[in-house]
Amino acid sequence: MASGAKPVVSFLGPVASYSHQAVRQVFPEDNWDLRPVATIDDVFDQVQDREVLAGVVPFENSTNGSVVFTLDNLADRDGRYEDITVDGEIFVDVHHCLVGRKNPHPLLEDNTDSGTRTPTATDPSPSKPKSKPLSSLRHIKRLYSHPQAFGQCNAFISTYLKGVEIFEASSTSKAAEIVSADRTGTWAAISNELAANLHGLDTLGKSIEDREDNTTRFLIIGTNPSIPEDWHLAKQSIAKSGSKSLVSFTVPHTSPGALEDVLSCFKEFNLNLTSINSRPSLLAPFQYIFFVEFEGHKYDDPDGRVKGALDKISRVAGSWRWLGSWERYR
Amino acid sequence: MASGAKPVVSFLGPVASYSHQAVRQVFPEDNWDLRPVATIDDVFDQVQDREVLAGVVPFENSTNGSVVFTLDNLADRDGRYEDITVDGEIFVDVHHCLVGRKNPHPLLEDNTDSGTRTPTATDPSPSKPKSKPLSSLRHIKRLYSHPQAFGQCNAFISTYLKGVEIFEASSTSKAAEIVSADRTGTWAAISNELAANLHGLDTLGKSIEDREDNTTRFLIIGTNPSIPEDWHLAKQSIAKSGSKSLVSFTVPHTSPGALEDVLSCFKEFNLNLTSINSRPSLLAPFQYIFFVEFEGHKYDDPDGRVKGALDKISRVAGSWRWLGSWERYR
Repeated sequence: MASGAKPVVSFLGPVASYSHQAVRQVFPEDNWDLRPVATIDDVFDQVQDREVLAGVVPFENSTNGSVVFTLDNLADRDGRYEDITVDGEIFVDVHHCLVGRKNPHPLLEDNTDSGTRTPTATDPSPSKPKSKPLSSLRHIKRLYSHPQAFGQCNAFISTYLKGVEIFEASSTSKAAEIVSADRTGTWAAISNELAANLHGLDTLGKSIEDREDNTTRFLIIGTNPSIPEDWHLAKQSIAKSGSKSLVSFTVPHTSPGALEDVLSCFKEFNLNLTSINSRPSLLAPFQYIFFVEFEGHKYDDPDGRVKGALDKISRVAGSWRWLGSWERYR
Repeated sequence: MASGAKPVVSFLGPVASYSHQAVRQVFPEDNWDLRPVATIDDVFDQVQDREVLAGVVPFENSTNGSVVFTLDNLADRDGRYEDITVDGEIFVDVHHCLVGRKNPHPLLEDNTDSGTRTPTATDPSPSKPKSKPLSSLRHIKRLYSHPQAFGQCNAFISTYLKGVEIFEASSTSKAAEIVSADRTGTWAAISNELAANLHGLDTLGKSIEDREDNTTRFLIIGTNPSIPEDWHLAKQSIAKSGSKSLVSFTVPHTSPGALEDVLSCFKEFNLNLTSINSRPSLLAPFQYIFFVEFEGHKYDDPDGRVKGALDKISRVAGSWRWLGSWERYR
């Protein structure tokens, strides 16, 4: 890194992705160079190789669940990422917009739709969309987005965009980019507001997602202790609410009760578990690497409970790794 | 169901899918009508509605992990599948083939490739494919398969099919169907042998997957106790090796240590855990429904350990459900 240059944080691109929104919440652009990369693997590679000081990767969505690509990199089966630790988390509320070009010839009756759909045999109690279009959608012929976003906006699409042809894009921000190239004015994308602004598109609908509480959690990864204190500063205004740690472990396959033995370490030291995930260990079929998050901090552990639990895990697990501890701001 | 007609078992199609292979292992076609359906949801719907007597759904792959569509149906957040139980499991070893049309003009030097690739900056230690092509592949211009299959045959593709254009299909058997319609003889699919036979294609490579131990586990679902004994008979020749049960549960969110409290029920009654999964509960962000498999059978429980654990879980879990118990044959 050139002396005097801003430190770099890489994130899963493209520009205007939800990951980009996450990075902007915590890493001020005055102090940091925000770098979009193509894959989650690239974020891990650049952090491990010290090309960047930090990385931001999606970890789980409150509707769709865990992001297995991130878990698989944290599993680090090849020892490629041995210096990487998790140093923080960022929550981003997912609000989808419908973006495109406004209808140049809206009809009076276009916005009188009640938002109520007719029950059918396959959908006897159709859900009502929680928001209405901001302007007429009669001209829309094509809809672009990431497959997950279609699933998250089901009620809006089946109420206001019936019969529109669906096209899958690799990301919601890519969908907005595709639509920005349309010259017919009849294409639209489900995307976020940042992408709409970036591509000069009109917002035709806001918060069109089915669920209000659609949130994605991102992890900040680094090669501890290289992360400077200044990204903590950006969060000073948010109330701290305890701390959290992440560990991974395998269990000796021949020993019955081995998984319970590791899990009971947390109970023994009165540490509250907040998540459990598992992925194939790839050592043998149907053996797993487990990921456990718990409340507590390895380096802020006045009564030694975290140390006690980790010491015991090191004795009963097959292999294990402390992946990081961080402050919670939510 | 018409009297005298064979009972029906539905599975995730199309015909010749790995699910089809799983069904054939346990449900003899002499006694059962094997029905392919379009989605995992369809299997659950048909079983719940008693249109079929049993269903077979993929549950986890030893390389790719859990099948979230199956977990989400077992979570049964809407109470749609309240009568469904898990009544058995089937293991299918995944062996991918390269299928297409033989090269009508093979050259002498075509099969002298050592299978060793040149190390590059992005791939410093390329893995060697574990099998060689059965005939020349110089004529292949297009390769069709399911995205997961491409990932599982990485070494073979990058060694023997360099520069071939990749096309994604919705399943490996669909890929074989697409290739069967090719009139140029230059398309190939990664598929299974059953699909190749069905579509009259040549086998150009066998067991082309990177890992030998790629196995998918399927679950047999039914509306207990409607499953007759005769599907057990089909497995009489396989040694029984104990039994297994599956439960799902949520934990009271306001109570710290609640997850440990449920998990410790298994340890207290000396029941060995074999898997843990979690999915979003969709009740509130970052609350989960957990799935635990353990060794033991609800209805073959001489020392009352399973009953003891389930009784205790019913007291400490937020909500919970016994999803089934079955004999193991592996």
